[in-house]
Amino acid sequence: MDWVAAALAGDRRAIARLMTLVEEDGEAARAVTAQLFPHTGRAHVIGVTGAPGAGKSTLVNELARAYRSEGRRVGVVAVDASSPFSGGALLGDRIRMRDVADARDVFVRSMASRGHLGGLARTTPGVVRVLDAAGYDPIIVETVGAGQLEVEIAQLAHTVIVVDIPGAGDDIQSIKAGIVEIADIFVVNKADRDGADRTQAILEAMLEMGSPAARTHSRAVGMLMEACSVAESAASVSGAPWRPPVLKTIAVRGAGIPELVHAIASHREHLQSSGEDARRNRARLIAEVERELHHRLLRQLVAGLDHHCLNDVLNEVTAHRLDPASAAERLQHAAG
Amino acid sequence: MDWVAAALAGDRRAIARLMTLVEEDGEAARAVTAQLFPHTGRAHVIGVTGAPGAGKSTLVNELARAYRSEGRRVGVVAVDASSPFSGGALLGDRIRMRDVADARDVFVRSMASRGHLGGLARTTPGVVRVLDAAGYDPIIVETVGAGQLEVEIAQLAHTVIVVDIPGAGDDIQSIKAGIVEIADIFVVNKADRDGADRTQAILEAMLEMGSPAARTHSRAVGMLMEACSVAESAASVSGAPWRPPVLKTIAVRGAGIPELVHAIASHREHLQSSGEDARRNRARLIAEVERELHHRLLRQLVAGLDHHCLNDVLNEVTAHRLDPASAAERLQHAAG
Repeated sequence: MDWVAAALAGDRRAIARLMTLVEEDGEAARAVTAQLFPHTGRAHVIGVTGAPGAGKSTLVNELARAYRSEGRRVGVVAVDASSPFSGGALLGDRIRMRDVADARDVFVRSMASRGHLGGLARTTPGVVRVLDAAGYDPIIVETVGAGQLEVEIAQLAHTVIVVDIPGAGDDIQSIKAGIVEIADIFVVNKADRDGADRTQAILEAMLEMGSPAARTHSRAVGMLMEACSVAESAASVSGAPWRPPVLKTIAVRGAGIPELVHAIASHREHLQSSGEDARRNRARLIAEVERELHHRLLRQLVAGLDHHCLNDVLNEVTAHRLDPASAAERLQHAAG
Repeated sequence: MDWVAAALAGDRRAIARLMTLVEEDGEAARAVTAQLFPHTGRAHVIGVTGAPGAGKSTLVNELARAYRSEGRRVGVVAVDASSPFSGGALLGDRIRMRDVADARDVFVRSMASRGHLGGLARTTPGVVRVLDAAGYDPIIVETVGAGQLEVEIAQLAHTVIVVDIPGAGDDIQSIKAGIVEIADIFVVNKADRDGADRTQAILEAMLEMGSPAARTHSRAVGMLMEACSVAESAASVSGAPWRPPVLKTIAVRGAGIPELVHAIASHREHLQSSGEDARRNRARLIAEVERELHHRLLRQLVAGLDHHCLNDVLNEVTAHRLDPASAAERLQHAAG
């Protein structure tokens, strides 16, 4: 059976199988990704992140329901980057999503970390790509858990929604680094609780303080990106910058969801009309090429090294006779 | 003037200057690090991390005071990885540290992110190394802010202290991924607040659930480490695993600080008698060699690439005609 052709035609079993291949991250994953890649880049990817307990899953559930009622096929990727100590949280969340997950026009995939946080950042784009190629649009990526990884996974998204709850943002220090900068839309969920207006006002004030430049700047850059900066500046962004709206929702009652859907659509429109969409897609793909290169280059170097040589150099470092940078230089010469 | 010799002799101006060089991360930094490196590896590095508002700075202040009263020279590196939106928090913290910071036998260095979180992870080891070479022991590294970076910086430390407050750990989901796994000592600070015993009990229960193996496993591993796994397993760890104690402190009153100092000393002893110390030092240094190699290999590849070629390949990717992994392969061949 041609699994790729079947997945492109929308076969759910084929889609699930390709996702598993991609998660295994081997040679088969590479072949599948190469075949799917020309069919991708069409879906709008929506990232949903924020503190645990903010009601992200319920919000995603309601968003999926809203898109479905518009006749769209919705993909949901739930990335549980939380610790093995808090395992099981995701399962509870997914049970709450049951009503949409069974629908034929919604595809829900849960990814758990199994202790390899770095691996999730590498395989999540591939899983999103399977849904994209299979025609799901939008694709909602929900992250549960850990700092830097949330930021990396959010960078997958065209529109990043940061979910907070009343009271949570009032201590400015509690706003995690990197999270504010990546938000395209803020949601104060559970807005029937005390202090929702105050939290909304504080978030608005924080947005006044931070410049849009700071927000743009925090997106991934790397050595490849710098090397092709000429081509990059030519594709510059025009028009007024996006000002993230701060919306209130009560997801358990569906309140505020139409406004959120509208804000997402406005942001998508803004991305397209300003050229920011092309810039972000480009930055994201170049960062992915750089990650692949890193992996390949290091693997090649290690394969080309004599084991005695490697151990000798590393032992010199461990004995504090050779510093790490000089050791790297020596290994590079030995391999080349 | 020979700044390295002066710093090794304990000259504060020379130490500050070398730290600035290291933070600039250029050729001069590499030369300085190479000269300092043989004089390092002696200090006990204590990482202090945990949620904002947990009172980390006060705790660090009290720890520094306690070590100072034992006649030891204490280094403090405060890494502010928090967002530009919450800028200024660190300054407030540092004002509270004034009483120890002015002492001649305490050296306090603040590092702020200026928007480059990745850069902090690269330069912090160098700054710690300057203090180590200059004879400061212990060196306390305090992180404020962001997820993954906290984990990376904590990996610098021999003993990692995770600071919590009453109530904070009661929602198990709120315990950040990666943070629990890296803790060698838990502190429930502000223990005069309601619920301190409960939080302590919950942390103890979580420790029962998680295996020590999971904790060890989460330390950095990489391709170089795997390649020299034979040598690694020879240096295996013996004896019973360390069980992180959960201590209560009221740092503003100095309560619980002697017990904390004692727990840190016990952990240091455990590391040395079990061989875990050597294993961690080795893992840390090999990870640093790998980071340096990554940087060098990618820089070399980019330097060897024709700019037209690079742009052509990246444009193929952006147009979704070539997938990122295949693009990496093509660039590697073009450069080699």
